[in-house]
Amino acid sequence: MMSNVVFTNCVAETIDRIVSEANPSKVFVLVDENTMSAALPLMQEGSPAVSGATVITVKPGDENKNLESLSYIWKQLGDNGGTRHSMLINLGGGVVTDMGAFAASTFKRGIRFVNVPTSLLAAVDASVGGKTGINFNGLKNEIGAFKDADTVIVSSMFFNTLSATEMRSGYGEMLKHALIKGPEMLADLMRQDVLEVGRERMLDLLKENVGVKEEIVRQDPTEKGLRKALNLGHTTGHAFESLALRRESPIPHGYAVAYGLVVELILSVMKTGFPSETMRKIAGYIYENFRAFAVTCNDYDELIDFMRHDKKNVDVSTINFTLLKGVGEVALDSTATFDEIKAALDIYRDVMHLD
Amino acid sequence: MMSNVVFTNCVAETIDRIVSEANPSKVFVLVDENTMSAALPLMQEGSPAVSGATVITVKPGDENKNLESLSYIWKQLGDNGGTRHSMLINLGGGVVTDMGAFAASTFKRGIRFVNVPTSLLAAVDASVGGKTGINFNGLKNEIGAFKDADTVIVSSMFFNTLSATEMRSGYGEMLKHALIKGPEMLADLMRQDVLEVGRERMLDLLKENVGVKEEIVRQDPTEKGLRKALNLGHTTGHAFESLALRRESPIPHGYAVAYGLVVELILSVMKTGFPSETMRKIAGYIYENFRAFAVTCNDYDELIDFMRHDKKNVDVSTINFTLLKGVGEVALDSTATFDEIKAALDIYRDVMHLD
Repeated sequence: MMSNVVFTNCVAETIDRIVSEANPSKVFVLVDENTMSAALPLMQEGSPAVSGATVITVKPGDENKNLESLSYIWKQLGDNGGTRHSMLINLGGGVVTDMGAFAASTFKRGIRFVNVPTSLLAAVDASVGGKTGINFNGLKNEIGAFKDADTVIVSSMFFNTLSATEMRSGYGEMLKHALIKGPEMLADLMRQDVLEVGRERMLDLLKENVGVKEEIVRQDPTEKGLRKALNLGHTTGHAFESLALRRESPIPHGYAVAYGLVVELILSVMKTGFPSETMRKIAGYIYENFRAFAVTCNDYDELIDFMRHDKKNVDVSTINFTLLKGVGEVALDSTATFDEIKAALDIYRDVMHLD
Repeated sequence: MMSNVVFTNCVAETIDRIVSEANPSKVFVLVDENTMSAALPLMQEGSPAVSGATVITVKPGDENKNLESLSYIWKQLGDNGGTRHSMLINLGGGVVTDMGAFAASTFKRGIRFVNVPTSLLAAVDASVGGKTGINFNGLKNEIGAFKDADTVIVSSMFFNTLSATEMRSGYGEMLKHALIKGPEMLADLMRQDVLEVGRERMLDLLKENVGVKEEIVRQDPTEKGLRKALNLGHTTGHAFESLALRRESPIPHGYAVAYGLVVELILSVMKTGFPSETMRKIAGYIYENFRAFAVTCNDYDELIDFMRHDKKNVDVSTINFTLLKGVGEVALDSTATFDEIKAALDIYRDVMHLD
């Protein structure tokens, strides 16, 4: 079961067509306080299905992707006449699509839902692949399920409300997909500045880029093997994110991934023969667009500790990574020792102009 | 994906074999306060896997099949070193198997779990079929998912701790399966008193009986068609249960199903040509073993109202039923008008010696 993914900037019309074909007993739209004002009115204007829907609004931000918000969504669905034949449209960034998808997957044991990501990051990362959930007990995505949306509508029409930081964050995940796919897609992305890409060109880029993830997820929906390719940059990226959080100065997910890519390309040079020149070129591009996440050698043990506790890690004395033999050539289930990781972090600090 | 169902009274040994094959990073056992004292020690004695496991205990009873208990289970899994490679063994009645299965399905987006039903009702009804969940917002099973256990261990070894009422309640669901399957299985059940069936004979009966449900669920896991056969007796049964609850004198689920079977066999006589003689014989057997749920004509409107709000109902002016043309011949998607239902309830009162 894979989602049907539609790439379009006629979002309201597409929602109407989907609702009309699905013929649900009732339509609900989930938004957060931001998309309620920035995206919902556009949809209500162009789509009778949306304007007739019951709107459920949650607070924005990852700190509200929690059991309290989830429970609120469930209650709103029930109190407003939701049945197992209802449909939920999730209109928002990753918080809304992840949490709304989980709410829909579990309300009356599952109702149909459509994801309409409004941020670049959610379009690239969160809306396809069936990972749904909430944060719980202090851990990200601790509770959730694998469940595909009926349809995902990928669009670039909402991006004009995003900040430069939000655009770059999404681009970090796009770079990851290009590194998995091959040199041509990577060159395409590195040729331009994400802030300068026009709306229709961005939709084309998204089509290619999300296609990489779609194809991988299709072959391995529950992450038994191949899907681990999508973890590229994430073992280190998550550790950077956690460290930043502990320092009380969080960094956007896609930035963390971009920095993580640099470290893991360095490990790829060390372990799997990835060309050093290519690594340096990509690191240069990332530095130019994302700057660097500052670490010193005093942070190494803490970073490795975060990696060891990653829910994907298996062993306790080494760390699992997805590495690359070259651009487009994935080396799944690679491992690195703590000493190798420390050496890679030394080189990271060097290529990213730290200290 | 269907569960592997094992019928055995060597439960501890079977758990050990399953755990050893699955090789989880950690084993958890979920019990309620009753099975903690009545069933867990037996398992701990016979199974190193269980005696080495972390035990999570919840309060017994349907009123505790709620978000608070679920959240407690999630937290215990996380706080005691649960990873996505852990395994949860649900040892208890329907509350434990339904809620534990849902907790496992959603912890870190799903860990493996084994259901070990300890009541006859859970063995027959709740442990096979992938329906997991909790009550929420005043509604039964409002939140949940379809998710199969890795293995279900069906056993009769725990039944000596059950009351006569609990045994009969399970037998109500067994009668339903026999009515769906055919005359031979039905005659087999009606030939004996559930309280007199020996342990090994009961295991044989369970094997045949659960096999009926297994086969139906295999063909239609998410209840798009054939699985509706399993709703036989339940449209009316749920209405009786709800009415009893409103009267603050709840009746056991399997009793409600047995009474519901009588009403729906009467509707089958009226609507689909089910033989009247057979209906009267079955009603007699049910009266003898379960007595009757008392209704008067003043209750009819309330009962119909409950049926209209059943999550399986589609239309508002008629009620959906699963009926029978004969024993073993299912008539899915039958409907009855309110007047027909009232006429059937009149006959129910007659055959069940009410008023």
